[in-house]
Amino acid sequence: MNNYQLKTIGTVRNDSTGAFIELEPEYIPALQALEGFSHINVLWWFSGCDNVQMRSVLETQQPYKGAPEKMGIFATRSPMRPNPIALTAVEIIQIDYERGIIQITFIDAMDGTPVLDIKPYTPSLDRVETPGVPEWCSQWPKCTEDSGDFDWEAVFNF
Amino acid sequence: MNNYQLKTIGTVRNDSTGAFIELEPEYIPALQALEGFSHINVLWWFSGCDNVQMRSVLETQQPYKGAPEKMGIFATRSPMRPNPIALTAVEIIQIDYERGIIQITFIDAMDGTPVLDIKPYTPSLDRVETPGVPEWCSQWPKCTEDSGDFDWEAVFNF
Repeated sequence: MNNYQLKTIGTVRNDSTGAFIELEPEYIPALQALEGFSHINVLWWFSGCDNVQMRSVLETQQPYKGAPEKMGIFATRSPMRPNPIALTAVEIIQIDYERGIIQITFIDAMDGTPVLDIKPYTPSLDRVETPGVPEWCSQWPKCTEDSGDFDWEAVFNF
Repeated sequence: MNNYQLKTIGTVRNDSTGAFIELEPEYIPALQALEGFSHINVLWWFSGCDNVQMRSVLETQQPYKGAPEKMGIFATRSPMRPNPIALTAVEIIQIDYERGIIQITFIDAMDGTPVLDIKPYTPSLDRVETPGVPEWCSQWPKCTEDSGDFDWEAVFNF
């Protein structure tokens, strides 16, 4: 029924020297002409959640403060989901086109995480001017630029 | 080296009656509590481009008017890419939680297209307030709301 083959196109490097997307050498030509885009959408693999148990989770108990008592996984950004594909819009600092390394300001992925795809953040496709959100998260930041200073620990029910 | 298993969680329905995401019955519980979000990010499979030849394409010749003569695939939204995963931010019209069907305003996927994941469009993660773009696409719409009225045929080099 399902026959999808994925390839690792790169790896997240995330340590004291910074955050980077490091391409597999064979994919370096695919980076050309990315200059000018300030952000990219990175698709990566929640490798820590790739097991039968975590991938069978469909509901979760109030993952955020004030949220509904029970939420479906497709209403959350939980890493435990049927297909553990993560999406992060990240800001580019600089690109080394020779070595195939993109330095970024931040990514919520651990060092060594497999990367599946990179797409330019294209405002006409990716930027919703006035998105609606539920009341329970209406106080969250309205854009990525404001997220860094937000007290996320205050909203997650960990 | 690569061992990723993906599941089809739903299917795009796109015909004269409208555009819909129809979940596989087993995943219907995962939709709970999506209400309040105006948009979702849909990850789907470019099934028409899932073959060895198209997946080996790393460069393309000036896909958009005024763009660089040669562009890397990771600088484009081309469906021909190493992992043919598509990302579309779509606007929700209504959700049938019983039948697991999300009616949406529009999606650039054909009827029958496999869906891999649904995530709530979360402004703090997905909405860049002031994204930078290259000069050659600086006249493209600045947000999804303005894309419907834009003359896309004038910018693609098909």
